[in-house]
Amino acid sequence: MNVPTIFDASRLELFCRHVFERAGVPHEAAVMVAESLVQADLRGVDSHGVVRTQIYLERLEKGMVNPLANVEVVSRFGATALVDGNNQYGAVAGNHALRTSLDIARDLGAGIVGVKNSNHFGTCAYYALKAIQQGFALMVMSNASQTMPPTGGVRPFLGTNPLAVGVPTGDVPFILDMATSVVSRGKIIVAAQKGERIPLGWAVDKGGNPTTDAEAALEGSVLPLGGAKGYGISMFIDILSGVLTGAGFGKYVNNMYENWVDAQNVGHIFIAIDISRFISLEQFKSRMDQYIAEIKAEPRAEGIDEILVPGEIEQRLTESKRKTGITLPFKVAAELHAIGKKYEVDLDAAAL
Amino acid sequence: MNVPTIFDASRLELFCRHVFERAGVPHEAAVMVAESLVQADLRGVDSHGVVRTQIYLERLEKGMVNPLANVEVVSRFGATALVDGNNQYGAVAGNHALRTSLDIARDLGAGIVGVKNSNHFGTCAYYALKAIQQGFALMVMSNASQTMPPTGGVRPFLGTNPLAVGVPTGDVPFILDMATSVVSRGKIIVAAQKGERIPLGWAVDKGGNPTTDAEAALEGSVLPLGGAKGYGISMFIDILSGVLTGAGFGKYVNNMYENWVDAQNVGHIFIAIDISRFISLEQFKSRMDQYIAEIKAEPRAEGIDEILVPGEIEQRLTESKRKTGITLPFKVAAELHAIGKKYEVDLDAAAL
Repeated sequence: MNVPTIFDASRLELFCRHVFERAGVPHEAAVMVAESLVQADLRGVDSHGVVRTQIYLERLEKGMVNPLANVEVVSRFGATALVDGNNQYGAVAGNHALRTSLDIARDLGAGIVGVKNSNHFGTCAYYALKAIQQGFALMVMSNASQTMPPTGGVRPFLGTNPLAVGVPTGDVPFILDMATSVVSRGKIIVAAQKGERIPLGWAVDKGGNPTTDAEAALEGSVLPLGGAKGYGISMFIDILSGVLTGAGFGKYVNNMYENWVDAQNVGHIFIAIDISRFISLEQFKSRMDQYIAEIKAEPRAEGIDEILVPGEIEQRLTESKRKTGITLPFKVAAELHAIGKKYEVDLDAAAL
Repeated sequence: MNVPTIFDASRLELFCRHVFERAGVPHEAAVMVAESLVQADLRGVDSHGVVRTQIYLERLEKGMVNPLANVEVVSRFGATALVDGNNQYGAVAGNHALRTSLDIARDLGAGIVGVKNSNHFGTCAYYALKAIQQGFALMVMSNASQTMPPTGGVRPFLGTNPLAVGVPTGDVPFILDMATSVVSRGKIIVAAQKGERIPLGWAVDKGGNPTTDAEAALEGSVLPLGGAKGYGISMFIDILSGVLTGAGFGKYVNNMYENWVDAQNVGHIFIAIDISRFISLEQFKSRMDQYIAEIKAEPRAEGIDEILVPGEIEQRLTESKRKTGITLPFKVAAELHAIGKKYEVDLDAAAL
C-alpha cells in the first residue's frame, strides 16, 4: 500500500470535510468538524487532530451522534444562555455556544453560555482562537468521560476535563489550553498508536500501579495534575460544564470509544469577556505585549534557550506546518486512506 | 510573659476588629478585615489568618494602605463592572466587588467584576462562601506579588495567584481555594515562623536550587503547580486580575512585606453566576449532592480512610474550632499580645 504521510493542511481539511459530507454530515457541520481537527494537527496537538476522524465517523455510522440535529439556545436570560447540542457533533455545538457567548458579550460586556447534550468538541483552543481574533477574552471548559481517579481513589471517576483561556495580544498570542491531567489522555493514545512508552508519573494501570506502558495506561487512569489541586480543578470544570448545564457529569459523561448504547452527553461552558468594557482593547494589547516581553526577558535556567508563553509553540508550529505540511504517523495516514476508499474521497489529493 | 494561645473565634475576631478600629480603620472596614482573617484561621488556613494582623497594621501605620478610602465602581456596563479599590484594604475592596458581582448576576444571570488598586484580600474562599450562601456560583481570582519563576526562568516573576470556585450544595460544601504554586507562600511563612523545614519540591532558594529550608525558600521562589500548566494558570489569573483591570501585573504588583514606598496595586476578578438561570437551584443542589456522594463512595486506595472534596476539611475544621477554639503558635500569639498592648485592646479577653 502506497500511503502518503505528509499533507497540505488546507487540502487535508478538504479531505476530512468531504468524507464527513459523504457520510451524511451537512456542509456547514462538516466544515466545522474538519476545521477543528486539522487545526489541532497544525498546532501540534496530534491527539485532537485527524486521528479522531475514524471515531467521529464510527459514532456517526452507529447512530451515536446526530449530524442533522439543530443546536439550539433553549434558554436565554441577560448575560447567560443554555445551549442544547441535541447530540450534534461537539464542534457544531461548541461553535454555536461560542457565537452566542460573543454576541451576548458584545451587548452586555460578558456572556456565560452552558452547553448540554454535546459530544467531544475538539480542542478548547479552537474556540479561544476565534474569540481572540474578534477582540474578546474567552475561558472555555468541557467535561469528558472518566479517566482520572479522585485524590485517594483508585479507578477513573473524573475526565481530564480541559480548560482554555485566550486573550488578544498585539504580538505573541496567549492561549493556554490544558487538560487537568498530568498529560492529556490523547497523548497516551498517540503514544500507543506510535508504539511508544510513556514517562512514569503520567498514569496508573487498571490495578492502580504506576506504568510506562501506554496500552496499560489506557486501560487504567491518567493522574490529575499536581495531586489534590488538579483533582479540584477537574471537579469544578465538571460542575460548571455538567452539573450546572444539565449535561452528564462524572460517570454520566459517556465514553466515545467504549459506550455504543448512549450518546456522550458532554457539557461545556463558555465565558466571554469584552475587553473594551474594562480597558480599551489597544491598551489591553499593549499591556499584554509588555507583560509577555517582560516574562520572555527573564533570566533563564541553565540549558533553557527561551522562555515561552502558553500558545507560543502552537502558533509557531501552525505557521511552519502551513508551509511544510502536516506529517502523520503511518498508522493514522493508513486509517485515513481506508476512510477515503470507503467514502470515495481521494486522500492522495491532500498529499504534499 | 503569660500569653494565651487558644482563643474563642468570635472574641478573637472582636479583638482584631477593635485593634483595627483603634488604629484608625472605620468600623465597617474593620469588621470585614477581622472577619476575613479569623475565618481563615477557622478553616485551618493559618497562613491567611490573624498571623497577617501585624503586617496589615504596619502597612496602615506607614501610610501604605488607606482605610479611609472609598471603594467605588468606576465603570459599569451590562454584566461587567470595574471597581477601584483606591488602596483600601483588600477585604473591603473585595467585599464591594463581590456585592457588585452578585447584584449584577441577580439582574442579568452573571456578573464579571474586576478590581484595581487593591491590597492583599485574604483567602478567596472568604468571598466564595458568601456567594454560595446566597445561592450563587463564584469564581474569584487575585494576583499577588512575585514569588514564582516562569517555566524555564530562575527568579520570581509571577505571584502564587490564587483561584477559588464555590458552588452551592445541599450537604457537603464545594469550595476549591488554591494557590497556583505547589503550596501557598503563606504555608512557607508559617513553617518559617514555627521553625519547621519544608518538603523538597515546594521551592527553590534564591540561586534556583531546591531547598527544605523555609527561610531560604522565602528568599527564593515557590514553584508553580504541575510545571508549565501551573505557570500558565498563574499567568491567566494575572492577566484577568491585573492586565485587564488596570491593576499591577508581574513585577508591578508590589510586595506587602518588602515595598514600603508604593501601594500594592493588587487586582482581583469576580465571576458570579446565578445558578437558577441555567437549572433550578434545588435541582442543582441535588445534582451536586449526588455528584459528591458518588465521588465519596469510590473505592479507596490503601491507607485512605475517606475521599474528600475541596472545602470539606475546611468546613469540618471551622465547626470544630468554633467549639474548641483557635490555637495559635506562641510566636503569633505573642505578636498579637504586643499589638493588644500597643492599641490598648485586651487579648486575654479573647482567650478560651
